[in-house]
Amino acid sequence: MVSEEVADTADAIANMDVRGAATIALAAADALAVEARETDADTPDEFRAAMTDAARHLRETRPTAVSLPNALRVVLAGMDGDSVSELKKSVAAAVEEFHERIDAAHDDLGRVGGRRFSDGDTLMTHCHSTDALACVEHAVADGKTLSAYVKETRPRKQGHITAERLRELGVDVTLLVDSAAYRYLDDTDHVLVGADAVRADGAVVNKIGTAGLASNAFDRDVPVTVAAQTLKLAPRTLRGHRIEIEERDPAEVLDGADLDVAVENPAFDVTPRRFVDAIVTERGQFPPEAVSGLLRDQYGERPDDAF
Amino acid sequence: MVSEEVADTADAIANMDVRGAATIALAAADALAVEARETDADTPDEFRAAMTDAARHLRETRPTAVSLPNALRVVLAGMDGDSVSELKKSVAAAVEEFHERIDAAHDDLGRVGGRRFSDGDTLMTHCHSTDALACVEHAVADGKTLSAYVKETRPRKQGHITAERLRELGVDVTLLVDSAAYRYLDDTDHVLVGADAVRADGAVVNKIGTAGLASNAFDRDVPVTVAAQTLKLAPRTLRGHRIEIEERDPAEVLDGADLDVAVENPAFDVTPRRFVDAIVTERGQFPPEAVSGLLRDQYGERPDDAF
Amino acid sequence: MVSEEVADTADAIANMDVRGAATIALAAADALAVEARETDADTPDEFRAAMTDAARHLRETRPTAVSLPNALRVVLAGMDGDSVSELKKSVAAAVEEFHERIDAAHDDLGRVGGRRFSDGDTLMTHCHSTDALACVEHAVADGKTLSAYVKETRPRKQGHITAERLRELGVDVTLLVDSAAYRYLDDTDHVLVGADAVRADGAVVNKIGTAGLASNAFDRDVPVTVAAQTLKLAPRTLRGHRIEIEERDPAEVLDGADLDVAVENPAFDVTPRRFVDAIVTERGQFPPEAVSGLLRDQYGERPDDAF
Amino acid sequence: MVSEEVADTADAIANMDVRGAATIALAAADALAVEARETDADTPDEFRAAMTDAARHLRETRPTAVSLPNALRVVLAGMDGDSVSELKKSVAAAVEEFHERIDAAHDDLGRVGGRRFSDGDTLMTHCHSTDALACVEHAVADGKTLSAYVKETRPRKQGHITAERLRELGVDVTLLVDSAAYRYLDDTDHVLVGADAVRADGAVVNKIGTAGLASNAFDRDVPVTVAAQTLKLAPRTLRGHRIEIEERDPAEVLDGADLDVAVENPAFDVTPRRFVDAIVTERGQFPPEAVSGLLRDQYGERPDDAF
Amino acid sequence: MVSEEVADTADAIANMDVRGAATIALAAADALAVEARETDADTPDEFRAAMTDAARHLRETRPTAVSLPNALRVVLAGMDGDSVSELKKSVAAAVEEFHERIDAAHDDLGRVGGRRFSDGDTLMTHCHSTDALACVEHAVADGKTLSAYVKETRPRKQGHITAERLRELGVDVTLLVDSAAYRYLDDTDHVLVGADAVRADGAVVNKIGTAGLASNAFDRDVPVTVAAQTLKLAPRTLRGHRIEIEERDPAEVLDGADLDVAVENPAFDVTPRRFVDAIVTERGQFPPEAVSGLLRDQYGERPDDAF
Amino acid sequence: MVSEEVADTADAIANMDVRGAATIALAAADALAVEARETDADTPDEFRAAMTDAARHLRETRPTAVSLPNALRVVLAGMDGDSVSELKKSVAAAVEEFHERIDAAHDDLGRVGGRRFSDGDTLMTHCHSTDALACVEHAVADGKTLSAYVKETRPRKQGHITAERLRELGVDVTLLVDSAAYRYLDDTDHVLVGADAVRADGAVVNKIGTAGLASNAFDRDVPVTVAAQTLKLAPRTLRGHRIEIEERDPAEVLDGADLDVAVENPAFDVTPRRFVDAIVTERGQFPPEAVSGLLRDQYGERPDDAF
Repeated sequence: MVSEEVADTADAIANMDVRGAATIALAAADALAVEARETDADTPDEFRAAMTDAARHLRETRPTAVSLPNALRVVLAGMDGDSVSELKKSVAAAVEEFHERIDAAHDDLGRVGGRRFSDGDTLMTHCHSTDALACVEHAVADGKTLSAYVKETRPRKQGHITAERLRELGVDVTLLVDSAAYRYLDDTDHVLVGADAVRADGAVVNKIGTAGLASNAFDRDVPVTVAAQTLKLAPRTLRGHRIEIEERDPAEVLDGADLDVAVENPAFDVTPRRFVDAIVTERGQFPPEAVSGLLRDQYGERPDDAF
Repeated sequence: MVSEEVADTADAIANMDVRGAATIALAAADALAVEARETDADTPDEFRAAMTDAARHLRETRPTAVSLPNALRVVLAGMDGDSVSELKKSVAAAVEEFHERIDAAHDDLGRVGGRRFSDGDTLMTHCHSTDALACVEHAVADGKTLSAYVKETRPRKQGHITAERLRELGVDVTLLVDSAAYRYLDDTDHVLVGADAVRADGAVVNKIGTAGLASNAFDRDVPVTVAAQTLKLAPRTLRGHRIEIEERDPAEVLDGADLDVAVENPAFDVTPRRFVDAIVTERGQFPPEAVSGLLRDQYGERPDDAF
Repeated sequence: MVSEEVADTADAIANMDVRGAATIALAAADALAVEARETDADTPDEFRAAMTDAARHLRETRPTAVSLPNALRVVLAGMDGDSVSELKKSVAAAVEEFHERIDAAHDDLGRVGGRRFSDGDTLMTHCHSTDALACVEHAVADGKTLSAYVKETRPRKQGHITAERLRELGVDVTLLVDSAAYRYLDDTDHVLVGADAVRADGAVVNKIGTAGLASNAFDRDVPVTVAAQTLKLAPRTLRGHRIEIEERDPAEVLDGADLDVAVENPAFDVTPRRFVDAIVTERGQFPPEAVSGLLRDQYGERPDDAF
Repeated sequence: MVSEEVADTADAIANMDVRGAATIALAAADALAVEARETDADTPDEFRAAMTDAARHLRETRPTAVSLPNALRVVLAGMDGDSVSELKKSVAAAVEEFHERIDAAHDDLGRVGGRRFSDGDTLMTHCHSTDALACVEHAVADGKTLSAYVKETRPRKQGHITAERLRELGVDVTLLVDSAAYRYLDDTDHVLVGADAVRADGAVVNKIGTAGLASNAFDRDVPVTVAAQTLKLAPRTLRGHRIEIEERDPAEVLDGADLDVAVENPAFDVTPRRFVDAIVTERGQFPPEAVSGLLRDQYGERPDDAF
Repeated sequence: MVSEEVADTADAIANMDVRGAATIALAAADALAVEARETDADTPDEFRAAMTDAARHLRETRPTAVSLPNALRVVLAGMDGDSVSELKKSVAAAVEEFHERIDAAHDDLGRVGGRRFSDGDTLMTHCHSTDALACVEHAVADGKTLSAYVKETRPRKQGHITAERLRELGVDVTLLVDSAAYRYLDDTDHVLVGADAVRADGAVVNKIGTAGLASNAFDRDVPVTVAAQTLKLAPRTLRGHRIEIEERDPAEVLDGADLDVAVENPAFDVTPRRFVDAIVTERGQFPPEAVSGLLRDQYGERPDDAF
Repeated sequence: MVSEEVADTADAIANMDVRGAATIALAAADALAVEARETDADTPDEFRAAMTDAARHLRETRPTAVSLPNALRVVLAGMDGDSVSELKKSVAAAVEEFHERIDAAHDDLGRVGGRRFSDGDTLMTHCHSTDALACVEHAVADGKTLSAYVKETRPRKQGHITAERLRELGVDVTLLVDSAAYRYLDDTDHVLVGADAVRADGAVVNKIGTAGLASNAFDRDVPVTVAAQTLKLAPRTLRGHRIEIEERDPAEVLDGADLDVAVENPAFDVTPRRFVDAIVTERGQFPPEAVSGLLRDQYGERPDDAF
């Protein structure tokens, strides 16, 4: 039985009230912090068991986003001590450190990615990504003027959020339906997207439509930049594990239409590494083939199978 | 000054109340028939001038669809006689013959295209095309069982019409947002689309999103079939003329959203010939490189610049 | 009931005692000649019916090779006259003319194809093709020294025949297992193959293994020459018809091995047009995209559906 | 023994005092006209022999440019009459008609090609071509503003001529060394070149450097337009004939340097058809795969082997 | 002079009585163990010299398989001690540990690779590889149902062994001649092969036919999985060394045929890295570009030039 | 104010009197050595400030070559001590060690790269590179006979230097204009070039013309080898920094011609990683995707932003 706090956070993630890889990761870490603070565990073993249960419960909410298990893994790895009170302190400290790490990573990533753009460049975006936005923020802060073609990103039209954020940053925004991308790639200097997970083989799992866009961009010789904190790198893929693709409600596709047909509504797709020019992280920018090396550095060759 | 009938038809085409390349062509031909029947021209010269004016007016309604000027060209070319009454008869006959030709072409095209599919094949469609549908009808009539991934085709979602028509034919339909196409190409045997115009160089002008889909299909080695009566072949492109791409109302893209950004809403894009496996016409199926030969056969090397 | 002659020829073709596209075509034409000479038909109608029956019976023997129905089509088209004796003469003449045409075509094709090779070139061959051989004969007769990598062409190892014929022509031959082709493409100037059928879209139906070789050659930027008399062009494919691929005896693959597994043994595969540099015919050499134009010239746009 | 006029013209062509495919063709035709006018042939047979000798002599001057034998072929084909005086008149008329045809072709070709460019487009050119220039002239005359990257085209730097001509037309010119092309393709809308010969398979023989540029442009997805009157189409290639590539003086490469090394200085290279978007002729624009069809139209399937 | 045991093992490897990369490696290690146990060396120096001689003799047997020198390198590196008896013990221990490492690696590799397959997938195999088989074993043990197209792999038809092993595992097997692969790739989800050596640049040396298959698979967009223990990684290639390709007996190709032609019978070919999706090892799965990093980890940047 | 020695060296580098990445690096290190020896700094702080000023001044001379800041970085990093005299010694030692490192690297790199060539191979070179030359030296020293196509490399024709050096080594040299490269790639086994900088993403910055050549070579399936000491790896690119491309004097392009047009004369271009087969360094040979790993090893993940 998990606590109410953990259950509520889990529900909020599953309902997409809490959205976005970093936001989910922080919410999950915070829920573990509350669990640690409020648990009535009497012994270190009970404490550890409670924390693991909470982590397991949180992990089940959304299958694809790897930031969630990675956050849980980091916090659990920070659990240390011989007494319950020591353990509680260690979790609180781990969660705080995790917050700081995410903030710093966001900023560092943006600085690296922003340097990739030149004054006057035109970007094309798909969906909404705070990591991608950080790159634009840094480029704008460096005095570069940017334009952007923003794909609406059916079915949930997160492109509208991106359009507003970019406009607030002073970027000259043109909104497009998703199908119009190919036509405007000829006027595009960079495709810029985020990621929900990056596999050991350099493939990028991101919002449905990314793979098709990246294939088009590769055909038109437009470089594809993936902005992804290392929190998005999926350690278990090094050992052959697959990333499950979440299937969402058909109603998002039908949008009120009364059609007696089947509907498929996968939330994500997989972009092969050959379409990706660079993966921008807080540790620098890398070709996708370098991801397995980063994973080995960060998690060793035998990342815990549990998370 | 054109007659009311011509003006009404022109408006209906411009408003997209009359839609679809063949439907537009027939409506324009019918309007010329009415014009011919009801004109108060007193002399052959006046008659010819009135007909040409009517044709010009009709041609201005939508810039991209080549079936419209081709239909006008055919009817005007059928105008023959030394008296107004002879001329009137000739136009009536030309229009009637045009109707028969379109009907026969539709059927012939479907027979050719339908043979390309095997029992059990899965198609992927974009937008709605009666020429494409004719191919499916013939395949189904030949006893083949087919499935189809149907892209919704934002912004106007003509995919919904295709979904219903295919379901009525007994095809197993799965509806997708446009962005999901890449993910399902691996399970697709044929991409099947129509065309608004086919250029002398074999490039295909069709609903926005076709080029990106065709590029994806080429990358995944899925053949792209374009169903297009020869009425869709654009004779003037042989002489270097470009096909203007119609830009439609931004409101179709915004769909009620209150966003203070620019919007581009082109109705069509251009698919390069290297992505197209076959162009299926009523005269047979052809690689796109053979289109210039068909055009020379059908219109000579110096197609009239007026239409 | 067909005559014994026709039945025997049909059996010999089915058993592959009679082999090779031109040989099959001539044998079928000869069988029709015998049928015409020996039939006991009393009326022109009976004669025509007997000839059509014979042609149908012959056509059923092997499904893929298009030279067979094309030969039958040519002979039947030559049938002319108001009496049985006139009809008999016309068939005899048509068959004789067909023989002359094939001989001339073989020679003309060889002359065209032979010019494609330079002194010192190295070829790579697959299976055995008299059309391909004719090109080498002409090149050698023009004083060019050639080498050849000859693939053995499992399961029936027709490459052994090619190896011997080429050696007799003075070509420096190296025999390879089929799998070794990729490794030697770097030292190859031309891949040279024949065809059992060429489709209206320029795709080439030839001995199993041709498509994989052509794909490899395209990757290594080695041009692929297909030597194919126009007798190999498949008119019905212009109207969307598919070419059935013959499946042969699993024992050819197992070759005596006692394995309790399924076996597939298709005799042919389909090489897409993008892998083919030139199709060499007696009418000249053509890019594969020009085949539909040749077919329209030779058979019109509505080639008889019966053959 | 050819006349002095013919000998002088032949020398001027060989020395490249007379240069450019159309100029060479006209000079050769003119030399035949003088030969016809001034020959002391007494009989029609002697006249025909003299003309053929003159044509043969002229043809030997430069091996690659196909406009030369094509011009000779056209003039000889126009030779008609039963007496020497009739023959003389026929040659004079044929040469005059040839001049008119070339002028008209130049203008027609320019009109077709000029339509391919949009206002504001940037071109990249290689070498100097009056056919290519005609396209720019028409585009500029239509009010379009164009820019151009002009490759210098070592070793003879004909790019300098192109740079001056384009500047005179009001085009904004930037001169580049040949090696800089790849870097500027990203800012280029069209590569525009001429041709010395176009083969039946759609391959284009043009100034050395064209093939590398076209390969680069294909990689960067920039369309390549080849401006080539049908006079440049090489009829004999339909029958498998190769086009000899002229090798010029090593001193052009060394340019005064004292280097004890071998030098290769081919004047032309061969661009494969897959890199060419369109071949613009006076008969319209065509994909390269349509060239064999044009050749069959213009010269039949068995173009005279003599020229 | 090497001992009889070493000589026998060397002969067995050279004759291919002992076959398969892991089996060869273990046999060589065992031979060193026997050599160590039975040597009459009196001093540590003599012992070391004897062991090195034995290793050198064993290494000469087959030039391509890198598992052999890697095994020798590992055992020699384990040699440690100040006396002959200590040295003997150290070799025995090193060989035992090597056995354990290979067993564990086999199992670990299979677990990683098996996860790459989904229930219902169809594989295509070439030659016989225990590493590849381990992946299938794990997938089957995880309850996945698999099918396989098994290429016979001329000239030695090791595909027959693979067919039997897979059938024993319950895989639905279809045997093909090598040339039929292209045709069935459209129904294949994964190409699965082993490796005899993997180079620092990610290229894979494996049974002749692998490169052509991988090129075909890349063209058809079917991922290629290479199962290869790290024992197959070739350390010396990091320093630019080439891997010699073994040439075997022409009789394997001729198979009894009496042909007076040359024969080439290379045992292996080289698959470029761009055709390889993943290299599956016991340390995880990697893109081929990551191999140089693994090699630096495992052997340092200056792997001993002796082995 | 920098010393005269530093100012002179800086001028010599800027004027290209001192040329070539390694030569520039050594000259800059030497200038720092002189600066250290002769500075009149009285305190460690003054000394450090003087050295940093000198380094900054030297770095400004040429923007693209990364060997310059890397050399300065290495020497400054070697500065160590509590007194001015200790600091002076440390700089002297660091510069000496740097010389030794460069010499050893040159030799090691050549040994690795030389092994990539086989006896009888034909190379193609662009510009002049001592690292590339080192590979040829080692191959020749190993008894291999090599030929080379040497591109002249307009505008400065450094190819002439390469031609002479290769001839001195006994290589059979053929000089070509840059535009002729594509034509001779078919007879080329390896393209061999140096680099001015290698980016973290594996892209190679080298003399203008390298990218177009590499694109052509990739198209023709000829491997491209880049010889580049690790001194050429650009650490700041890991953090997203761009490499500025030096623009040189238009007069180099005009070469005396009097043309009233704009000129662009960039000294370098950027070759994308997908065209590069291997980067040969003194630490071994690597696929370009491995460069980010080498950079992290050598400089850490946060290379000093100052240099």
